[in-house]
Amino acid sequence: MHNHPMDTTTPARPRVLIIGCGFGGLEAAKALRRAPVDVTVVDRTNHHLFQPLLYQVATAGLSAPAIAAPVRHVLRDQANVTTLLGEVTAIDPALRIVRLGSGEALPYDHLVVAAGATHSYFGRDDWARFAPGLKTLDDAFEIRRRILLAYEAAEKESDPRRRAEWLTFVVIGGGPTGVEMAGTMAEIARHTLRGEFRRIDPASARVLLIEGGSRVLQTMPEDLSQRAQEQLQRLGVEVRTGSRVVGIDDTGLQVQPGAGPDAAYRISSRCIVWAAGVAASPLGRQLAEATGIATDRAGRMPVEPDLSLRGHPDISVVGDLAAAMSHHPRRPARPVPGVSPAAKQMGRAAAANILRRLRGEPTRPFRYRDYGSLATIGRNSAVVDLWTHFGRVKFSGYPAWLFWLFAHVYFLIGFRNRIVVLFDWATAYWSRQRYARVVTNIGGTAAADG
Amino acid sequence: MHNHPMDTTTPARPRVLIIGCGFGGLEAAKALRRAPVDVTVVDRTNHHLFQPLLYQVATAGLSAPAIAAPVRHVLRDQANVTTLLGEVTAIDPALRIVRLGSGEALPYDHLVVAAGATHSYFGRDDWARFAPGLKTLDDAFEIRRRILLAYEAAEKESDPRRRAEWLTFVVIGGGPTGVEMAGTMAEIARHTLRGEFRRIDPASARVLLIEGGSRVLQTMPEDLSQRAQEQLQRLGVEVRTGSRVVGIDDTGLQVQPGAGPDAAYRISSRCIVWAAGVAASPLGRQLAEATGIATDRAGRMPVEPDLSLRGHPDISVVGDLAAAMSHHPRRPARPVPGVSPAAKQMGRAAAANILRRLRGEPTRPFRYRDYGSLATIGRNSAVVDLWTHFGRVKFSGYPAWLFWLFAHVYFLIGFRNRIVVLFDWATAYWSRQRYARVVTNIGGTAAADG
Repeated sequence: MHNHPMDTTTPARPRVLIIGCGFGGLEAAKALRRAPVDVTVVDRTNHHLFQPLLYQVATAGLSAPAIAAPVRHVLRDQANVTTLLGEVTAIDPALRIVRLGSGEALPYDHLVVAAGATHSYFGRDDWARFAPGLKTLDDAFEIRRRILLAYEAAEKESDPRRRAEWLTFVVIGGGPTGVEMAGTMAEIARHTLRGEFRRIDPASARVLLIEGGSRVLQTMPEDLSQRAQEQLQRLGVEVRTGSRVVGIDDTGLQVQPGAGPDAAYRISSRCIVWAAGVAASPLGRQLAEATGIATDRAGRMPVEPDLSLRGHPDISVVGDLAAAMSHHPRRPARPVPGVSPAAKQMGRAAAANILRRLRGEPTRPFRYRDYGSLATIGRNSAVVDLWTHFGRVKFSGYPAWLFWLFAHVYFLIGFRNRIVVLFDWATAYWSRQRYARVVTNIGGTAAADG
Repeated sequence: MHNHPMDTTTPARPRVLIIGCGFGGLEAAKALRRAPVDVTVVDRTNHHLFQPLLYQVATAGLSAPAIAAPVRHVLRDQANVTTLLGEVTAIDPALRIVRLGSGEALPYDHLVVAAGATHSYFGRDDWARFAPGLKTLDDAFEIRRRILLAYEAAEKESDPRRRAEWLTFVVIGGGPTGVEMAGTMAEIARHTLRGEFRRIDPASARVLLIEGGSRVLQTMPEDLSQRAQEQLQRLGVEVRTGSRVVGIDDTGLQVQPGAGPDAAYRISSRCIVWAAGVAASPLGRQLAEATGIATDRAGRMPVEPDLSLRGHPDISVVGDLAAAMSHHPRRPARPVPGVSPAAKQMGRAAAANILRRLRGEPTRPFRYRDYGSLATIGRNSAVVDLWTHFGRVKFSGYPAWLFWLFAHVYFLIGFRNRIVVLFDWATAYWSRQRYARVVTNIGGTAAADG
């Protein structure tokens, strides 16, 4: 244990370095479990985050530890893995080293870059402080803080106009995260906080979902989008599709409806959540400069069919940072979507190709297996679109919600977390309560003083 | 619900304002449940914190929501209570108003000040950033962050001297919190992290407990102190009693042993926790100035036998902010200790005396019922000192630990939290794992770069 090969100058076995321990990086590390390589996993956090449930932390339904597993605990039994906490600042393909913010240089023989994505404000980074996005636990705590403190501020506010501002919640972006956030925010207003305030009625809060496209959940079939929108409206969410956000400030946002002659209008709100744009990790730019390969418009790195970089077979890119294609023997190549099953499959495929290279075998093109997609809207509401052996299955409402629930619990890492999340949801379901309503760092906000 | 009396200018019923929703404030509010008064509870956080288990959050054994209940949820069914989030900045006994940081002024007819305590560095506030104390959830997150990131830094550190610094953990203060912290830190080193690191052996970490007095747990009988010290040593904690801390900086502390001629010596450590001093809330000073009543040396307000302030029968002080005496009909008055059962009893007594005053009856002196005390040291280890109907009972070890466990779970607020904490502890007990090992805000620390 103390004579780890990484400490020696002549490594006995090929060194595989994995940047990032999201779905892609973690699967790559696990796929190398029995391989004759030394694996190092480096991440800037100490936990693997189950991102599909992050909105539950943001909306006070789950505690952070329920969806975040310590990376080194997850990988503890894999003797060929060393886990390091650190922020990667540079990749040097010529020297085959990766530099950390702490100054350390990590050598590699094979590199897997699984640095993921962050939110994108489409060039309007100044909007970030008015409308936080949801990618990390810190993001989730910040959004939780803003939602709960808005009600607190409203209870103290005597001016009706300002009170209405505090009680208007806006989600920008109608993808899965936006739909989940808006639905849950409506539930908080209508159910969770019922009877807890004396001067305001939480149920009078407005929740708006602003989507630039013509429908919510655009990657899903049109009829499921329609179902989702109906379910959102039943929960009390005002859905505004075809509406572009053209300005955000600390008391509201400016919305441009449609492509027609309608004038932009203002929505006053003190709690705005950004669920609209995703961009690849900034590490992509660094990698593009170092390799001379240009990123695509979303900042992703184009990869070869085997997920390596052109001219750099020792570097693989997987997950949201990769602009990858799925290669089917009898069909044209199709782009791989930025979803967690794809990241996991890419992680496993990259690991397999590294082992093929080590054995002197040809690598194989990546093929994405699409099992379908699903999104939840709120209590008892979800939409599911599955590709099964028997063909396509679409359903919505309560059965879809049950399916969503068990699918998410099933994929959670760790026996313990599964039990905890199931218990949390069971109690939340019966009580309509959300137990993780703790807000810290209250002093750091304008809300507490507003 | 929307025509709350506080919104009218001529209140129909006496207004009771409670500052703080710790044990004292919350019990006072609950004791006024069926009383013909309008109660307002103001606190600077949105949660009641079960402080006896805060060290478990700091040592990654529990998530924050498991020990923090939203105040307005706890009090939701009590129709005569309004809950407000706000920081009290001034008390004006002449005008009978309390001012909040937001500028709001809250009028009262009766005031209960239950603002609690904070840590005291005995005039050395510059030590705070090197050795955080443990009073709030933010404190707990900071300590959790320092403990876990110290191991991460050690794993990356190649210099043996600096590595040893990262693997030396020091707790200053041998009261219940210090003993619990040190015992749990030793368990983390010996058990929780076993097998998870490749370059360091977590079990080689040192945990030191520094106590200025001659024994740990000084408020307990001497034989139980002895037991506690033995149990700590069995867990691997180095206990240094009779040792005063005379300096703290970012890489260690200076310790002065005994009263003898021994020279002060240095302990190099990158993770120091302050559990030594408690001082009353700064609100005490403000109250002292406003009323002309001097605080005691610990910053506490001396109170009359009925817990009101001399010359201000409409102001009661309870909990850690009160320098109160216990009045027994046949025994001399004794000081009330700063423990949670005392705060709860004072809260109830102050509420009862407010109602007596309203009815024109004489108030009653406060009498503290001491049921004993208990402290846990680690897995299977605790000491218990009980006063029962049948006399005094002292015990330690496994039975004491079981007793401690069930007593704490019993007193936790809310059915749900009890189940959650029991489940967390059951899984932690069998797996020796600590599931709340999530660290956020990593960028904000020198540790991640160190």
